[in-house]
Amino acid sequence: MQRPSGRESNQLRDIRITRQFTRHAEGSVLVEFGDTKVICTASVVPGVPPFLRGQEQGWLTAEYGMLPRSTGTRMGREAARGKQGGRTVEIQRLIGRSLRAAVDLTKLGENTLHIDCDVIQADGGTRTASITGAWVAVADAMAWMKAQGKVKESPLLRAIASVSVGIYQGEPVLDLDYPEDSNADTDMNVVMADDGGIIEIQGTAEAEPFTENEFAAMLKLAKQGIAELNKLQREALAQG
Amino acid sequence: MQRPSGRESNQLRDIRITRQFTRHAEGSVLVEFGDTKVICTASVVPGVPPFLRGQEQGWLTAEYGMLPRSTGTRMGREAARGKQGGRTVEIQRLIGRSLRAAVDLTKLGENTLHIDCDVIQADGGTRTASITGAWVAVADAMAWMKAQGKVKESPLLRAIASVSVGIYQGEPVLDLDYPEDSNADTDMNVVMADDGGIIEIQGTAEAEPFTENEFAAMLKLAKQGIAELNKLQREALAQG
Amino acid sequence: MQRPSGRESNQLRDIRITRQFTRHAEGSVLVEFGDTKVICTASVVPGVPPFLRGQEQGWLTAEYGMLPRSTGTRMGREAARGKQGGRTVEIQRLIGRSLRAAVDLTKLGENTLHIDCDVIQADGGTRTASITGAWVAVADAMAWMKAQGKVKESPLLRAIASVSVGIYQGEPVLDLDYPEDSNADTDMNVVMADDGGIIEIQGTAEAEPFTENEFAAMLKLAKQGIAELNKLQREALAQG
Amino acid sequence: MQRPSGRESNQLRDIRITRQFTRHAEGSVLVEFGDTKVICTASVVPGVPPFLRGQEQGWLTAEYGMLPRSTGTRMGREAARGKQGGRTVEIQRLIGRSLRAAVDLTKLGENTLHIDCDVIQADGGTRTASITGAWVAVADAMAWMKAQGKVKESPLLRAIASVSVGIYQGEPVLDLDYPEDSNADTDMNVVMADDGGIIEIQGTAEAEPFTENEFAAMLKLAKQGIAELNKLQREALAQG
Amino acid sequence: MQRPSGRESNQLRDIRITRQFTRHAEGSVLVEFGDTKVICTASVVPGVPPFLRGQEQGWLTAEYGMLPRSTGTRMGREAARGKQGGRTVEIQRLIGRSLRAAVDLTKLGENTLHIDCDVIQADGGTRTASITGAWVAVADAMAWMKAQGKVKESPLLRAIASVSVGIYQGEPVLDLDYPEDSNADTDMNVVMADDGGIIEIQGTAEAEPFTENEFAAMLKLAKQGIAELNKLQREALAQG
Amino acid sequence: MQRPSGRESNQLRDIRITRQFTRHAEGSVLVEFGDTKVICTASVVPGVPPFLRGQEQGWLTAEYGMLPRSTGTRMGREAARGKQGGRTVEIQRLIGRSLRAAVDLTKLGENTLHIDCDVIQADGGTRTASITGAWVAVADAMAWMKAQGKVKESPLLRAIASVSVGIYQGEPVLDLDYPEDSNADTDMNVVMADDGGIIEIQGTAEAEPFTENEFAAMLKLAKQGIAELNKLQREALAQG
Repeated sequence: MQRPSGRESNQLRDIRITRQFTRHAEGSVLVEFGDTKVICTASVVPGVPPFLRGQEQGWLTAEYGMLPRSTGTRMGREAARGKQGGRTVEIQRLIGRSLRAAVDLTKLGENTLHIDCDVIQADGGTRTASITGAWVAVADAMAWMKAQGKVKESPLLRAIASVSVGIYQGEPVLDLDYPEDSNADTDMNVVMADDGGIIEIQGTAEAEPFTENEFAAMLKLAKQGIAELNKLQREALAQG
Repeated sequence: MQRPSGRESNQLRDIRITRQFTRHAEGSVLVEFGDTKVICTASVVPGVPPFLRGQEQGWLTAEYGMLPRSTGTRMGREAARGKQGGRTVEIQRLIGRSLRAAVDLTKLGENTLHIDCDVIQADGGTRTASITGAWVAVADAMAWMKAQGKVKESPLLRAIASVSVGIYQGEPVLDLDYPEDSNADTDMNVVMADDGGIIEIQGTAEAEPFTENEFAAMLKLAKQGIAELNKLQREALAQG
Repeated sequence: MQRPSGRESNQLRDIRITRQFTRHAEGSVLVEFGDTKVICTASVVPGVPPFLRGQEQGWLTAEYGMLPRSTGTRMGREAARGKQGGRTVEIQRLIGRSLRAAVDLTKLGENTLHIDCDVIQADGGTRTASITGAWVAVADAMAWMKAQGKVKESPLLRAIASVSVGIYQGEPVLDLDYPEDSNADTDMNVVMADDGGIIEIQGTAEAEPFTENEFAAMLKLAKQGIAELNKLQREALAQG
Repeated sequence: MQRPSGRESNQLRDIRITRQFTRHAEGSVLVEFGDTKVICTASVVPGVPPFLRGQEQGWLTAEYGMLPRSTGTRMGREAARGKQGGRTVEIQRLIGRSLRAAVDLTKLGENTLHIDCDVIQADGGTRTASITGAWVAVADAMAWMKAQGKVKESPLLRAIASVSVGIYQGEPVLDLDYPEDSNADTDMNVVMADDGGIIEIQGTAEAEPFTENEFAAMLKLAKQGIAELNKLQREALAQG
Repeated sequence: MQRPSGRESNQLRDIRITRQFTRHAEGSVLVEFGDTKVICTASVVPGVPPFLRGQEQGWLTAEYGMLPRSTGTRMGREAARGKQGGRTVEIQRLIGRSLRAAVDLTKLGENTLHIDCDVIQADGGTRTASITGAWVAVADAMAWMKAQGKVKESPLLRAIASVSVGIYQGEPVLDLDYPEDSNADTDMNVVMADDGGIIEIQGTAEAEPFTENEFAAMLKLAKQGIAELNKLQREALAQG
Repeated sequence: MQRPSGRESNQLRDIRITRQFTRHAEGSVLVEFGDTKVICTASVVPGVPPFLRGQEQGWLTAEYGMLPRSTGTRMGREAARGKQGGRTVEIQRLIGRSLRAAVDLTKLGENTLHIDCDVIQADGGTRTASITGAWVAVADAMAWMKAQGKVKESPLLRAIASVSVGIYQGEPVLDLDYPEDSNADTDMNVVMADDGGIIEIQGTAEAEPFTENEFAAMLKLAKQGIAELNKLQREALAQG
């Protein structure tokens, strides 16, 4: 089996994490998983949704979007159609759930962290790149809150990152790009903490059901990839 | 650990599958997982969506809804709000993906199977009950197509069923009801074929990340539960 | 003239009223007019709409829906289309207006009664079945409020019920089913109180205008039918 | 009993019907029932809705709107809110149904008559004024079609008009204006043909149910009022 | 060059300004620029939008609409489509911006002036007629506020009016009607105060770019036309 | 007068035009006017809107959006609100109109050029930067069409660019940034061709009306600025 990109089966794409990518947000990161490029911002907004008012805690919510020509064929603009598509809704719920596991909401005060992940170029794995990059933006926003005296201690609980794994031409591979993703037998997105704890697993058989052995092999690859991503996140945060 | 319902940790709720529940649909099933009750219909509709036209295959798509007072507190009606909520979208995409794995779309002709899962009473596990019941409705609709001469051989590929598993008060449990679900540390929905192949796994850490051991224990429970559900599906189909 | 069902011209279909059909709502009724089956729930929700705030009275509002495959051909789901159709709006306004005539809103406290009528199987007369069944759900909800000490005396003013009448093949008939309804010259829906007072009359000439004599004959049939429905409502409430 | 306007109980308001009110539509009428003023246009548009294609017949449909400041208090603009309200939907369906009874759709060719009734000033009875005025616009549009050679014979079947009646302070009155309408015990809208045939009756008990005798008295008033309106319609059409 | 209407190149159409056109609004004007007819109302509504609360000032906002058959071919009703079109949005923003320049919002109290411009017949220049007519409605509403004691001094800052100019068959012309507008090389809408101050200029090259000289010639025509419109506004206000 | 940025009154911000910014679009440009950064893509899509079908010409349309945190305070995402705001609609109509003046649509074939301008960081002048950058993307897309043999000769008619000018603290200034824009007395956006022809002028008095002299001074600045921008566009296209 030869991957279209020539990568080893357990090899991530080139990962780049650029902090302070735009200047207004409390955390702003450009994350690149190869040709997949996502702008991830974390905004600290006073107030919480109605269902949390008066409970002395904060909230974190995420939105996801793709620029219309981030893809090979232009997609309709969701704002113009007046509706977010089902895939968008599914992805932004996953991003929000995952990042809530990284933050102690009871230490946020009555503030909401708005995460925005906007794909400017897509080549597979936009949701996993979004989670990985957005976590760095969250870390920056938490540091900003502490520096501003808005929180006494950082609400950050743990580092999390995410990667996709799959079965491509019968073999487990790490970090699928678009040519692999669109032909994979099985696709699985994994979100993990830096201590190996599992935050979210979403595995889908695209054509044939997959076996427990395949599942185990994919999970092993994901663990390794996420450990590498955690390291890159730490390195990015260590700069400047 | 005592489950609120008094069930054993590996014990399903009382499962009831009632076929021909309503009279118009090609497949119509009332599925009950204890107090969770869902009407699942499969409708055979001529034609396919634009992206499949002329490709001599069919399609399967699913929609999910909850009656406003299927829950303890009345929820707003999505039709009146003019929008399906994010949870609804996520669930109906899961149902559709899962059931497409059960049907050979190339044998359907240019027809669309519309699956409708409408929850009339909710007590946890509505998405797994929906998939389990809808599969029986699909089986009935496929039999109807064959009897009508609309297909030469049944497009049904395999039996699938779904169940939830979770970690409740530190222990893995099968088929969570609402009191468990709303307090679980981890919640996982599994869809499997009757040969043990995995169709979909969605595991979410609600509070703390979960370990691979916990994951393995949950998956084992799910396999056992799905085998029981497959048996009940077969029995239901064997009647009349 | 022979009715498709073989019924006499002044004969109702088999009417069944099942209380406590689902367990969460304060009033929950499955009403069946022959093959027409509607789940009617009455929910007591604290608060009133803005235009009534501070006026020390309550409100009653109704919503109506049909499951997509309650009909012979699958209808699009209104929640997915993002809009309730004109017929739905018209019917739910009729249900709400009718039931407000049955309740003394000044005795409700600042609470809103939400009526939900969801058709699970349609065979003509869904709006009249909805009103008839929903009144029983309202009665149960009022009893619940009294039992809970939320009201001192029951806000229930009177029993109401509803039935359709029409001119079918030149003759007045009671309680039209779908084969009659789709071929009737004239269709009229009547809502009456148990003392014969008229709450609402909506008569429509489908093809030819109708005469005052035809109108009088239809109204007479409606009175008789509603008296029978009132009796069945009382019997249902007398149980358990 | 003294009516706020000083009118007799069986007295219409001043009725004015101005044809060719605007210049683009095939039929364009300003109808005034006292201070209620509605622009009614009938537009002949080639083509029919999908459900009628290829059936060699036409269609008639109606839309209704109120200018935001046609009323004492400014109402939100429905186009800006992105949704027509329930009352609007109910009224436009009534207008469409009523006028379809006036036109032989099988003689229209594959054309659609679009009726637009836009209230520029409201003082009660906007729906009955709309139907009465729109019928004149339809008659003009039918004459235009004949003159243009688009139809061989006029599809107009009969003249129809509409008026409201009600019980005001215990007495039946004809053609309620806003001060009466907002205090009436009962409100009934009647649409009749010029031969006395009934097209539509919609009677609603606002507070107390009404009796058959009250109903009969209202219907008698309506018949008289509609006969007068039919005469005014004929006179308007007789002018140039 | 001969204008389709036979007008001189610097000649306005017949302008008519009718005050108190409808009776409910604080200011209500029918403005006619030849065959273009627009109902302009100014409504005084207590309260301001959220972003201005507590700032002791008022607000002015405008909405614009066209009756479906104000045009040669029937347009879809925006309320029915659930969305205002781009042209509508652009025009109502222009109307609002222009009229805010005529009112001292700090003298309005916490009130909002809602301007509604509804085109009942269109023949080109609906936006300029709207602004010109709406200013008279605003003047009337300001006088009403003063007479009611709701403001101490009139918040009216200056008179404004608007006219279109363009290059038609190579020559600058004033106040384009539809036959000119749809064939113009360049179209420019100008809003000016009665002292010649410029409020808004929007010039658009429809086909070829235009030169500064052409621009200057158009601006000169606009100044003259607006001076005439200001005179007609004053005359209208001078009447009873 | 001292500009907040220290620039001369006739000095542009640092302008950067980066071609091939993303890889999928036929033309993809990152344009920077100082801290204002916009991704402009031009997509060639087969087909034209219904109103142009069969007319052997193409079309060009534009959409505009801002990432939620491109601004100092997070804005709601339009896709999530289900509606593009009025400002967005106004801007994207301006971009589309302006660029249609740069392209000979009759030479495009039945293709549509979709322009997408997405602001990733805002500091005033996003619409003028969008037009300036999008023109370069269009030029690249036209070259691509020619290279692909989809057109015989380039449909590009002329170079256009756009800049804002305004009166800031009484003096005319070029290319306003956000601190100036939010305090300007007058704001004007000018679109011009490289031969000095005017494509679009939109001048708005924010507080006081402006005079013809002020207008002339602003227009002069705009001409100079646009000439510089045209030069930068040419230089960018000259590279690789």
